[in-house]
Amino acid sequence: MNILVLGGDGYLGWPTALYLSRRGHRVGVVDNFARRGYDLEMGVESLVPIVSLQRRVRRWREISDLAVDTYVGDLTDPAFVTQAVTSFGPDAVVHFAEQRSAPYSMIDRNHAVYSQVNNVVGTLNLLYAIAEHNRDIHLVKLGTMGEYGTPNIDIEEGFIEITHRGRTDVVPYPKQPGSFYHLSKVHDSHNIMFACRIWGIRATDLNQGIVYGHETEETGLHPELATRFDYDGVFGTVLNRFCVQAVTGNNLTVYGSGGQTRGMLNIVDTLACIELALEHPADPGEFRVFNQFTESFSVQQMAEMVAAEVPGANIEHTSDPRVEKEEHYYRAAHTKLLDLGLKPHLLTSTVLKSILAVAEQYKANVDTAAFRPTVNWRSTASELATARGSAPRAPADHEGDQAVARV
Amino acid sequence: MNILVLGGDGYLGWPTALYLSRRGHRVGVVDNFARRGYDLEMGVESLVPIVSLQRRVRRWREISDLAVDTYVGDLTDPAFVTQAVTSFGPDAVVHFAEQRSAPYSMIDRNHAVYSQVNNVVGTLNLLYAIAEHNRDIHLVKLGTMGEYGTPNIDIEEGFIEITHRGRTDVVPYPKQPGSFYHLSKVHDSHNIMFACRIWGIRATDLNQGIVYGHETEETGLHPELATRFDYDGVFGTVLNRFCVQAVTGNNLTVYGSGGQTRGMLNIVDTLACIELALEHPADPGEFRVFNQFTESFSVQQMAEMVAAEVPGANIEHTSDPRVEKEEHYYRAAHTKLLDLGLKPHLLTSTVLKSILAVAEQYKANVDTAAFRPTVNWRSTASELATARGSAPRAPADHEGDQAVARV
Repeated sequence: MNILVLGGDGYLGWPTALYLSRRGHRVGVVDNFARRGYDLEMGVESLVPIVSLQRRVRRWREISDLAVDTYVGDLTDPAFVTQAVTSFGPDAVVHFAEQRSAPYSMIDRNHAVYSQVNNVVGTLNLLYAIAEHNRDIHLVKLGTMGEYGTPNIDIEEGFIEITHRGRTDVVPYPKQPGSFYHLSKVHDSHNIMFACRIWGIRATDLNQGIVYGHETEETGLHPELATRFDYDGVFGTVLNRFCVQAVTGNNLTVYGSGGQTRGMLNIVDTLACIELALEHPADPGEFRVFNQFTESFSVQQMAEMVAAEVPGANIEHTSDPRVEKEEHYYRAAHTKLLDLGLKPHLLTSTVLKSILAVAEQYKANVDTAAFRPTVNWRSTASELATARGSAPRAPADHEGDQAVARV
Repeated sequence: MNILVLGGDGYLGWPTALYLSRRGHRVGVVDNFARRGYDLEMGVESLVPIVSLQRRVRRWREISDLAVDTYVGDLTDPAFVTQAVTSFGPDAVVHFAEQRSAPYSMIDRNHAVYSQVNNVVGTLNLLYAIAEHNRDIHLVKLGTMGEYGTPNIDIEEGFIEITHRGRTDVVPYPKQPGSFYHLSKVHDSHNIMFACRIWGIRATDLNQGIVYGHETEETGLHPELATRFDYDGVFGTVLNRFCVQAVTGNNLTVYGSGGQTRGMLNIVDTLACIELALEHPADPGEFRVFNQFTESFSVQQMAEMVAAEVPGANIEHTSDPRVEKEEHYYRAAHTKLLDLGLKPHLLTSTVLKSILAVAEQYKANVDTAAFRPTVNWRSTASELATARGSAPRAPADHEGDQAVARV
């Protein structure tokens, strides 16, 4: 299969590209290096050093004898999107290429507008490129479980059957997202569903939980194939932050009571889910939603699990900088990927130890200032806005600089 | 009350501004003349001639001795929005200032992206300006009944109580909009609901039906106070188009079977609804939704009603350029505004005759080429895209040109 991985330089995009490459697919990677640009803007780095995309791709070729095409450019540039889709000729597009941090989107107005415009316009341009070039292309789009929020009823996979005043219909599951980032994913989902309806496009929206884990079979083959490990308060996920706090002798900081419960999954299950979606594509015109996670944990539970692995680790409760329910009902369906054959890798002590080992190995790189929550949902301008000013530009985000290289 | 009317130069914004001015409120009008720009782009005009905003405002002052402030600028410019809100100091903002045509948003990719970015970013900037300046400002936002689509169950006003697997919750009503324009309004609704939650803003989302009628008490006072009358295939509403087709001896063209059923209301009821929303504001932090229409008709019914008034008028069925159900269940709640005291003006023969009289009076201005549907939902690029090229710019859409005048 010809598979174009958008955002293929990122935390999940890069391991996905390698995984699909190794399984015999022809893979192309599209990226504008926005994620590396956010590092520059925030003054933080992946705990595990990562090399340039070009170097990663060369190293992969040396090790596997497999080529990966690269397309450097921005999805908000329609000419670039059309060029990438037309020249690569994908059977499927896996779309990770969005600003993916809730706190980042809440820094200030510039970051909120950037997050929504970047994500929504990129996806709109992609939908048009697919509709114009080949409506049979299967779009596999990364959404988030955060689109649903925390309703007081069970969460279903994208749609819910409602019986109301004596009539019954299956309708999109109501969305109550919790940040301007999460909202951008809801906007995307509505736009994609509509594009499927009017143009007969086939799409799978993967409402993914929080991903943990660092190494995959492919990224473990060489240090230059490593993917990112983020632990900071803006882009890091809470489990990584707890692990890094624990190995550096800092308190594990839980926002509020820690009753916030979220779906989670191992990075190796992300790759398996994407492969399952690709192998079993949506029908023409179908907008299909899978909830992509394997277990649910509260933040307090995660802190306790990490603390149990590290003697002397302390849990500290701080005020919650987000506006969210600190205690709530949470039960979300996630059977569709299991039905397709997913075999979950759960969050065992062994897995936690492996993440802690990464943190331990690179602990000299840790910037403890990066732990601190710097973005408050109740304020319209965080200290980061004051410190850093206007809207971010990705390093490659200028016209006329769209290198297309086959490495 | 100090009331800022965004999009106050448009079909509904202008009559709203005059209505509120006459009732003793201090009124400011914000506009970037985007609507007049679309006329230039499409090569069509309001059937009833309209004068410049400045001249309208001067004429209103001569007749009523009431001043209206004007702010010329674009809501996608955050500095302009902040300036307008800060200098006018509104108690309430009535927000009409969005691209409001479904066919226009479906012309091609440029117009889809423009419609979503213009509407979503303008509203985001407004939300930030309110949150920064005065969180007590009541936002009255124009949405559309088209946000709901045509589900096979009753449509409620914004929220629905669902009992699911033994648990009950009240959640946002699921949305299934039918164009990139309608989608932009859904995106807005989600963003506004979130802003109310995190910042304690108060907002009323008016999901309005299709508005008909031309004259209000205030616009009827002088020809220079007239509002727009659009009958073309892109910005005109179907009832206006049928009236103009009928008086010019053309067939009334119904898309498909004509079973498409929509909520509708008289322009004078729009003004009354907005006044009721302003007089009974949402609570701090409340995101309130009213369905703003008074009756439902199918397109076929509308065509028959117009034809019945004009001897010799013929109805012609053409293929539907939109992707929509031509026959469907439709029952939508609309009791909240009635509960606040709305007294509907229904679509009687007298009302139809008054619209037909406007069409008759100005029939020398009719461009029959404008009747034709030029935008097809199934295509990614309509003939208008070919003819007119890239994304539209509003006449006033450039920085450093934000005249603020008190007339």
